[in-house]
Amino acid sequence: MLRLGVIGYGYWGPNVVRNFALQPDCRVTTICDGDPAARARALIQYPAAQTVTDAREVIGSPEIDAVAIVTPVSAHYELARLALEHGKHIFVEKPFTATSEQAEDLIELAEGKGLVIMVDHTFLFTGAVRKMKELIDQDVLGRLYYYDSTRVNLGLFQHDVNVVWDLAPHDLSIVDHLIGLEPERVVATGQAHLNGLEDIAHITLYFPNCVTAHINVNWLSPVKVRTTLLGGERKMLVWNDLEPTEKVKVYDRGVELEPNKEGIYNLLVSYRSGDMWAPRVQQTEALQLEARYFLDCVNSGQRPFNDGRAGLRVVRMLEAAQKSLKRGGEPVCIVSSPPGVTNAVPEVFAPLD
Amino acid sequence: MLRLGVIGYGYWGPNVVRNFALQPDCRVTTICDGDPAARARALIQYPAAQTVTDAREVIGSPEIDAVAIVTPVSAHYELARLALEHGKHIFVEKPFTATSEQAEDLIELAEGKGLVIMVDHTFLFTGAVRKMKELIDQDVLGRLYYYDSTRVNLGLFQHDVNVVWDLAPHDLSIVDHLIGLEPERVVATGQAHLNGLEDIAHITLYFPNCVTAHINVNWLSPVKVRTTLLGGERKMLVWNDLEPTEKVKVYDRGVELEPNKEGIYNLLVSYRSGDMWAPRVQQTEALQLEARYFLDCVNSGQRPFNDGRAGLRVVRMLEAAQKSLKRGGEPVCIVSSPPGVTNAVPEVFAPLD
Amino acid sequence: MLRLGVIGYGYWGPNVVRNFALQPDCRVTTICDGDPAARARALIQYPAAQTVTDAREVIGSPEIDAVAIVTPVSAHYELARLALEHGKHIFVEKPFTATSEQAEDLIELAEGKGLVIMVDHTFLFTGAVRKMKELIDQDVLGRLYYYDSTRVNLGLFQHDVNVVWDLAPHDLSIVDHLIGLEPERVVATGQAHLNGLEDIAHITLYFPNCVTAHINVNWLSPVKVRTTLLGGERKMLVWNDLEPTEKVKVYDRGVELEPNKEGIYNLLVSYRSGDMWAPRVQQTEALQLEARYFLDCVNSGQRPFNDGRAGLRVVRMLEAAQKSLKRGGEPVCIVSSPPGVTNAVPEVFAPLD
Amino acid sequence: MLRLGVIGYGYWGPNVVRNFALQPDCRVTTICDGDPAARARALIQYPAAQTVTDAREVIGSPEIDAVAIVTPVSAHYELARLALEHGKHIFVEKPFTATSEQAEDLIELAEGKGLVIMVDHTFLFTGAVRKMKELIDQDVLGRLYYYDSTRVNLGLFQHDVNVVWDLAPHDLSIVDHLIGLEPERVVATGQAHLNGLEDIAHITLYFPNCVTAHINVNWLSPVKVRTTLLGGERKMLVWNDLEPTEKVKVYDRGVELEPNKEGIYNLLVSYRSGDMWAPRVQQTEALQLEARYFLDCVNSGQRPFNDGRAGLRVVRMLEAAQKSLKRGGEPVCIVSSPPGVTNAVPEVFAPLD
Repeated sequence: MLRLGVIGYGYWGPNVVRNFALQPDCRVTTICDGDPAARARALIQYPAAQTVTDAREVIGSPEIDAVAIVTPVSAHYELARLALEHGKHIFVEKPFTATSEQAEDLIELAEGKGLVIMVDHTFLFTGAVRKMKELIDQDVLGRLYYYDSTRVNLGLFQHDVNVVWDLAPHDLSIVDHLIGLEPERVVATGQAHLNGLEDIAHITLYFPNCVTAHINVNWLSPVKVRTTLLGGERKMLVWNDLEPTEKVKVYDRGVELEPNKEGIYNLLVSYRSGDMWAPRVQQTEALQLEARYFLDCVNSGQRPFNDGRAGLRVVRMLEAAQKSLKRGGEPVCIVSSPPGVTNAVPEVFAPLD
Repeated sequence: MLRLGVIGYGYWGPNVVRNFALQPDCRVTTICDGDPAARARALIQYPAAQTVTDAREVIGSPEIDAVAIVTPVSAHYELARLALEHGKHIFVEKPFTATSEQAEDLIELAEGKGLVIMVDHTFLFTGAVRKMKELIDQDVLGRLYYYDSTRVNLGLFQHDVNVVWDLAPHDLSIVDHLIGLEPERVVATGQAHLNGLEDIAHITLYFPNCVTAHINVNWLSPVKVRTTLLGGERKMLVWNDLEPTEKVKVYDRGVELEPNKEGIYNLLVSYRSGDMWAPRVQQTEALQLEARYFLDCVNSGQRPFNDGRAGLRVVRMLEAAQKSLKRGGEPVCIVSSPPGVTNAVPEVFAPLD
Repeated sequence: MLRLGVIGYGYWGPNVVRNFALQPDCRVTTICDGDPAARARALIQYPAAQTVTDAREVIGSPEIDAVAIVTPVSAHYELARLALEHGKHIFVEKPFTATSEQAEDLIELAEGKGLVIMVDHTFLFTGAVRKMKELIDQDVLGRLYYYDSTRVNLGLFQHDVNVVWDLAPHDLSIVDHLIGLEPERVVATGQAHLNGLEDIAHITLYFPNCVTAHINVNWLSPVKVRTTLLGGERKMLVWNDLEPTEKVKVYDRGVELEPNKEGIYNLLVSYRSGDMWAPRVQQTEALQLEARYFLDCVNSGQRPFNDGRAGLRVVRMLEAAQKSLKRGGEPVCIVSSPPGVTNAVPEVFAPLD
Repeated sequence: MLRLGVIGYGYWGPNVVRNFALQPDCRVTTICDGDPAARARALIQYPAAQTVTDAREVIGSPEIDAVAIVTPVSAHYELARLALEHGKHIFVEKPFTATSEQAEDLIELAEGKGLVIMVDHTFLFTGAVRKMKELIDQDVLGRLYYYDSTRVNLGLFQHDVNVVWDLAPHDLSIVDHLIGLEPERVVATGQAHLNGLEDIAHITLYFPNCVTAHINVNWLSPVKVRTTLLGGERKMLVWNDLEPTEKVKVYDRGVELEPNKEGIYNLLVSYRSGDMWAPRVQQTEALQLEARYFLDCVNSGQRPFNDGRAGLRVVRMLEAAQKSLKRGGEPVCIVSSPPGVTNAVPEVFAPLD
C-alpha cells in the first residue's frame, strides 16, 4: 500500500487524486492546498483524507511514501527537492522544473537515493499517442519526415508563464517520446498581445536525420484545434484529439521520386493514394494508466520512461524556445544530454490494455 | 476591344484564357505554348485563336494589346520586359518575378511607358478574401492580432521552386492585402526530404504594431488543409477555403484583461463568447473578376491594387523567407518600400457583385 | 426547503440527485434502489442521504415532500399513483407512462389534489431547444414546414422497450414543444433484427397546417448522429447536438415560387441564399434548469409546461407509432386532447439565464 | 464505330455527350434539342456533330446505331418505343419510364429485336457504390440489416415530378443493385409545401429477410446531405458522397446478443468496437465507365445489369411509393417480377480499373 500526499488541489489536482485513489494498492492520505475552498472540496470528495495548508506537513510526514506535486511550475523545484531529501518518491506536474539546472539537480538527488521521479507527461498514456508510438516502433510509417501540431484555443489560463510553457510541453513530451532523439536546434517566434506574456507562438525543432517538429500554440484562437500531422516515408497520419473515436487516421499516401523524362510542366514525382485506416485507440483515461505505472515503478524500482530525464529534455527544449522567442526567432542550439541520458523506453512498460 | 495574347497553356493558362474570353470587350487572339499537345487542346477549345510556338510572335505582334504571361516564374522577367518594351500591358502569373530587382526594373519600365502591370494574385478576388478585407476595413475585427494560415496537401507540383515559392505567394499576397503594411522581419524554417527542394516550411512575418503572420506550407501532408485564423481584438474569424459555402466564420469571441483580485489559481482574464456568423461570400469565379478588373484598368489607365508593386512586395517577402530558410531560421529584415510605394487599395475597385 | 426522495439510482438517477442537490432550497433526503451497489455509490456521494430498498419507504415518508421516479417506464404508473395518493409532488422520468390511460389517471389525481407532475423532458431545457423555441416564437423561421431528426448510434440499452420508446420520446417532446399542436396521424416503420424489439424505426407525424415531423431512430448505426433539420418559410436551421458549441445554425435560405415564363428546362422557383448564423446557446446543464423549475412550480403552485399533459401527449404519439409499427406502417390517427388540454407554454417560464 | 444520336441537351445531356464522345469506338453524330440555345452550345463544343430540332431526325436516321434519350421522363416511352422500332439500341435517362406498363412494353420489344436497353443508373458506376457492392459480395458486411439514405438539399429542379421521382431513383437503383431482391412492401410519407408537388418525402421499403431500406429525400433542406448508412451483421458502413476522398468508411462495429444474467439495468448485448477503414474508391467519372459499358454490351450482345428490367424494378418501387404517398402513408405491396426477371448482376461486368 503506497501512501500518497498530494500538494495542490486546483485545476489538475483533483484528477491526480481521483486516479491514484482508484488504485487498490494506493491510499491518498493527505491533500495540501493553501485555498480553504479547495480543501473543503477535497474533504467532501475524500472524507478519509487529511487536508493541510502547509506543504511541509506532507513532505515531512513519516506516514507518506510518495508526493504528487501539482502546483505551478515555479514551486516545483523547492517542493521536489525537499520531498526527495525526505526520501519520498515524487510525481511532478509538467513542465518538470523552471530551469534545466533544477531538473539536473533533482535527477542527481533522486538517483543517489534510489527514488523514483515521474513527470506527468499525461499525453504519453493516451490511446492515441500510444498507438502512434506503436506505429513508429513497428516501422509502419517508415522513416519519419515531420511532426506538425496545432494546439490552439481561446484561453489564457496562466498568469505566470507564456503560451509556450503552458501548451507546448504537451507536444514536446510527445515529440521526445515519438522521435526518440533530442533536437539540435530550436527556432521560436511569437507575440504578446495582452499582458506581456506571449499568447501565440510557433516553434520549429530541428532533429537529426532531417526530422523536424513544428508546434503552433495560441491562446487567442476563436476555435479549439488539437490536430497533429505525422509524416513518414511509407505512411502519414493525422491525429485529431477532438474526434470522439477516430482520433488517429493513417493514410496510405506518399510520394515517390521518379526520373523526369518529359517537358517542363510534367511532374517529377508520383503519388500513392491508398486506403485510410483509423485503428481503434484505447479509451482508458490516460492519468489512470499513468498512476498505475507510477505505483509499478515504485514497487519494482524500475525507472519510468517519463522520468526526470524526460522532464529535463522537455525543459531544455522549453528553455531554448524561450530564448529564441526573446531574440525574435534566432535559432538556439540545444546541448544534447550527456551519455547515458537517453530517452529509450524501458522494455517493461506494458500498461493494462 | 482588347486583343490579348497568352503565353503558356499548361495548368493555369486554360483558366486565364477562358476567363478573358468570357469578357465581351476582350478577344484572345493568340495562344503560345512550346508543347504541341497544349496547342492542340487550345485549338479545340478556341478554334478562332491562333496558336504559336515562339513567345516573340505574341510579344512582337502589332495585333496584340496586352500579354498574359502564364509560365514558370523563371521566364517571367524576360518575357515581361520584352512585352513592356513592345508597349503591351501585362498580366503576370504569381509570383511576379524571381528577384526583387527584376520586379523593380519592370515597374520602372511600365511606369515610364504608362503601361499596366497586373500580377495574378487570384485569391484577392475570391469572395472570402474580399469579405475579410471588408470586415477589416469596416473595423469589425478591431485591431488585428495575427494571421495564421495552414496550406498543406500531398503534392510536389514544382521541380524548379520549393514549397515556399509555390504555395506561400497565395498567403503573402493576402497578408499584404489585408494587413496593408510591409513586414519588418521574416523567420522561415523548413526541410527538404525528397529532391533537395524544401517540401515543408513555416514562415513567421513580424509586422509593425505587433501584428504577426504565420504560414504553414507543406507538400507532404496526407490531407488537404486550407484554413486560416485571423485574430482581432473585437472579433476573430476562421476561413476554411475547402468549405463549399460557409467559407468564412466570424466569431464574437475575445479576451478582456481584468485586474486580478484573487488567489493563485484564478484567471487574469475574462472571455467573451457570443454568436458565430458566416456571411454569404460571393461565389463568382475569382479569375473572372480579375480579368474584368484588368480590362477596366487598361481602359481607364487606373493602377490596379495588385500591380507590380504588390508583386514586388510579395517577392521581397519570398526572398527574405528563402534567405532565412537557407540560414536555418535566422531572422531576416525586410527593407521597406520607398515612400510612395504603398499598398493602399485604390478606391475605385468595386467588381461586379 | 423541499425534501426530495429519489427512486432509482441506475443510469440517470445520479444526474437527477446531483442537480436537485445543487439547489439551495432542496434536500435529497432519501435514495431508493434495489441494487446494493447502486445504494453504496449513492452513499459515497451523498453521505447525508438515507438509502433504502423499498420504494414505499420513500413514498410513505412524512419527511418527504416530493418524489422523483427514475425507474424503467413499466414501474412509473404504480409508483406515481402511490406518491400522489400520499400527497407528494412528482418528477417522473420520460416517457411518462406505459399507456395513455395511466397518464390520464395520474393527471386527474394530481389535479384533484393540487399536486405538481413534471415529466423529465430534459431536452426542453437545453440551450439549443430553448433557442429554437425562441426563434419560432419570434417568427424568425416563418411558417413551419417540417422537423426532421436523425438520432442514431450503436447501442441497445433497453431490454424492455424498443428503439421507439427508448429514443423517440426526446424528439416527440421537442416536437410537441416547438410545434405546439398535436399530430393528426402517425406512420411508423421499422424492423427488429436482434432480440424481437425493433432496433430501427422511422416515424412520420402529420400535423395540421401541412407541418410534418420525421424521426429516424436506430440502435444499429456505426456512428452517432444527433442532427435535426427544421424548415420554415423564412429561414431554416440545422441543430447538431454533437457540436460542442455551434449547435444551432440558422440559414437565411429559402425558395420562392415564380411564374414560369420559359421552356421545359427552366426553373419554377428562385432560391434565396444568404448568411448563416450560429447564435450562442446557453451551456447550463439542462437538468439543472429543470430541477430549479420543478422547485419553482412546487413553490408557486404553477403548472409546468412539461406537466402530465405534455407527458400524455408524448405517450399518445408513442402509442400511435407503436400501433403503426406493428401493422407494418399503416397510418394511425391520434385522437386529440379534449379542450383545455393544450400544450400552451405558461407565460411565467423564464429560467435563469 | 458506334454512331450515337442524343436527344436532349439540357442539364444532363452535355455529360452524356461528353462521355460517349471520349470513347474511341463511338461517334456522337447528332444532337437533338428543341431549344436553339442548347443546340448552339452543342455546336460550339462538338462542331463535327449535327444538331437537329426534331427527335425523329435522330430516331429515323439510318446513320445512327443507338440513341441516348436524355429528356424529362414523360417523353421517355414514346421516344424509346420509336427508337426500338427503328432498330436502335437505347440508353435512357432515369427513371426509365413513367409507368411500369411502359417499361414492360419496351423490354418486350427490345428482347424481341435483340436490342440493348440501358437505363442510366449512373450511381452504380461510382467508385463508392462499386466498393459497397464488392463488400457485400465478398460477405465483408455479413447479413444485411438495413440501408438508410439521406439525400437532401435546397432545390426544386423539377416542375413535372415530385421529389420522389426526382431524387429517389438514385437510391432505389442502388438498393436494387446492392440488396439484389425486390421489396415486398413500400410505405411513403411526405408533404407538398409549395407548388402541389411533394418536396419532402420518406420512403421505407420492406425487403425479404428483414432487410429494410429507408430513403429521406427533401428539396427544402438548408444544407446538402448525401449520407447513407449500410448496416450488416459483421460490419457497418457510412457512405458520405460529399467527402472528397474518404467516401466510404467501414466500421468494425456490431452488437452481439448475450444471455442476461443480471439485474434490470444491465445490458442484454455486448458491443464490438474496432477499427474504421476507408478503402480507396475509384475516382473515374461514373458516366465514363457506364458509356464504355454500353458500348461493350452493344458490341457483345450482352444484357447489361442496368437493363430495362432494372429500370422496371425501380419504376415499380416509384409507383408503389407514389401510391402510398397519395394515400397518406398506407403500405403498398409490390408484385414481384415474373421468373427470369432477376436483378442478378451478369458476371462479365468488370469495368476498367
